Amino acid sequence: MPFTDQTSPNAPIREKMEALIRQKQQEITKGLEALEPTARFFADSWSRGESAGGGTSCVIQDGEVFEKGGVNISVVYGSLPPKAVERMRADHKNLKFPKEGNIPFYACGLSMVIHPKNPHAPTTHLNYRYFETWNEDGTPQTWWFGGGADLTPSYLYEEDAKLFHQKHKDALDKHDTSLYPKYKKWCDEYFLIKHRQETRGIGGIFFDDFDDRKPEEILSIVSDCFDAFLPSYVPTIEKRKDQPFTEEERNWQQLRRGRYVEFNLVLDRGTQFGLQTPGSRVESILMSLPATASWAYNHQPEEGSREAELIQVLKNPREWV
Amino acid sequence: MPFTDQTSPNAPIREKMEALIRQKQQEITKGLEALEPTARFFADSWSRGESAGGGTSCVIQDGEVFEKGGVNISVVYGSLPPKAVERMRADHKNLKFPKEGNIPFYACGLSMVIHPKNPHAPTTHLNYRYFETWNEDGTPQTWWFGGGADLTPSYLYEEDAKLFHQKHKDALDKHDTSLYPKYKKWCDEYFLIKHRQETRGIGGIFFDDFDDRKPEEILSIVSDCFDAFLPSYVPTIEKRKDQPFTEEERNWQQLRRGRYVEFNLVLDRGTQFGLQTPGSRVESILMSLPATASWAYNHQPEEGSREAELIQVLKNPREWV
Repeated sequence: MPFTDQTSPNAPIREKMEALIRQKQQEITKGLEALEPTARFFADSWSRGESAGGGTSCVIQDGEVFEKGGVNISVVYGSLPPKAVERMRADHKNLKFPKEGNIPFYACGLSMVIHPKNPHAPTTHLNYRYFETWNEDGTPQTWWFGGGADLTPSYLYEEDAKLFHQKHKDALDKHDTSLYPKYKKWCDEYFLIKHRQETRGIGGIFFDDFDDRKPEEILSIVSDCFDAFLPSYVPTIEKRKDQPFTEEERNWQQLRRGRYVEFNLVLDRGTQFGLQTPGSRVESILMSLPATASWAYNHQPEEGSREAELIQVLKNPREWV
Repeated sequence: MPFTDQTSPNAPIREKMEALIRQKQQEITKGLEALEPTARFFADSWSRGESAGGGTSCVIQDGEVFEKGGVNISVVYGSLPPKAVERMRADHKNLKFPKEGNIPFYACGLSMVIHPKNPHAPTTHLNYRYFETWNEDGTPQTWWFGGGADLTPSYLYEEDAKLFHQKHKDALDKHDTSLYPKYKKWCDEYFLIKHRQETRGIGGIFFDDFDDRKPEEILSIVSDCFDAFLPSYVPTIEKRKDQPFTEEERNWQQLRRGRYVEFNLVLDRGTQFGLQTPGSRVESILMSLPATASWAYNHQPEEGSREAELIQVLKNPREWV
């Protein structure tokens, strides 16, 4: 799977990022499996047909704690077709792309979504990626890092939201205290379900087009963000995984998962970009979808209920730390 | 709800189409209720805030036969914002739109999706609409009809597919025998889930930008297509609604519904256009989604199974009549 073209001046960064995502896939799957009595992650490796690259999806299904989840790593490279270039240009206004023609690119990253079974245990998503494009003559053109991590509870527990944000804030503060406020806000903005005017979850951090520091420095920030994940999430799952729940609470979780599906399929740039890019692996992209979800016509939670409390915070993102 | 501006030369057609959709909403909901022992359609009327217009959603939920369904009519008019205009221009390449500025528009239509509970009873979708735009000075610019009806089974019953296609073919053949072959093919092409390379269901008819006959003539074709629906679907539901089914069959239906959600949220032009147009009623648009759906990583039906038989026909659309 490692990318073998060593001609780019960015080759050392690619290599380090690839090593990082492989290591973190191991650590994260191990860390989550420690919470799960029955199911185990299984690894499914794939390679791209039309273009070049491949990846490994680690998938867990039908667990007692984790109903469905996946931790994917992938390294892909090749030539972006005009439609993907157009989309990419619109999505990355700050980056310089050539005016015409296909774009040779390289991308690697880890992408994870975990849907626990218990409606009191929050869903989480994490993704860190490195992207590079170069000119037709092989000279480097642009590179950037992107990613983040966020939490999507069906029921609000302030302590869970605070822990998640605090751990990610600590990781960023080590490098620069201006990062967390910026990335926290970016996360709330990115994960807005526009047609509902509510966010997907209670946020976290999100950044993109990160290229204004030395790549080694950004890699070190990304590495610390990776390390923040398990301590920000595992204690919450330990606390919630065996919490009793009612059928109504399970139904509410299903409706919230429906909103998760809406965001991912209608609005998520990564999903849309992936589904439109030839040679993408659909199963790895749509692994983010929950095992089950539901929709009801015009469902409105009762005023003053715990369900209404969640909607309130999704409509008015809060500062958690 | 009727549109009161009578200055357009197309005002009589609008009036007739509005009357038609009101009448068909009544007939279709009555016709479906006759199959359902417990649940009833309830009517929910709404009006647009920012712009003008409104509609009535007739919704059925948690029935013994129909798990979720809706028959909506709407009449909306106002000014399309630039982003919607851009999308509309891309979607209707054959129609003439002005180069710049907002577009004053009028649209009315009936839109229906029915998800039965029994995995042997097929989901169906129907939509017929009339659209009109005019210039800033109030002179008419362009008008067209669009719509169709299609069937989405979880298990293939050839007789059900044949009945559905035959009734719609008969309706079109009355006017012009060249229409059915064209609209049948269009339907297979439109409802292709591109990232899966399989169609959403076993097709039906689909047309758009229909403006090359007198509007009265097209209205009469649309009216006959409407009338084809109940006879094309009711006998199938009568046959399937009480058919015994296993838990595995129910699970397969849930996975198929997941694909239905994928098509509607990722690819359906009407859904995307609606969700992006300010003042749209989200609940009426997303009424098309099933009560429940599911996703499993890399699910592959067993070779030679009834599930594989369905996939086979979705990957290779067949001629049914």
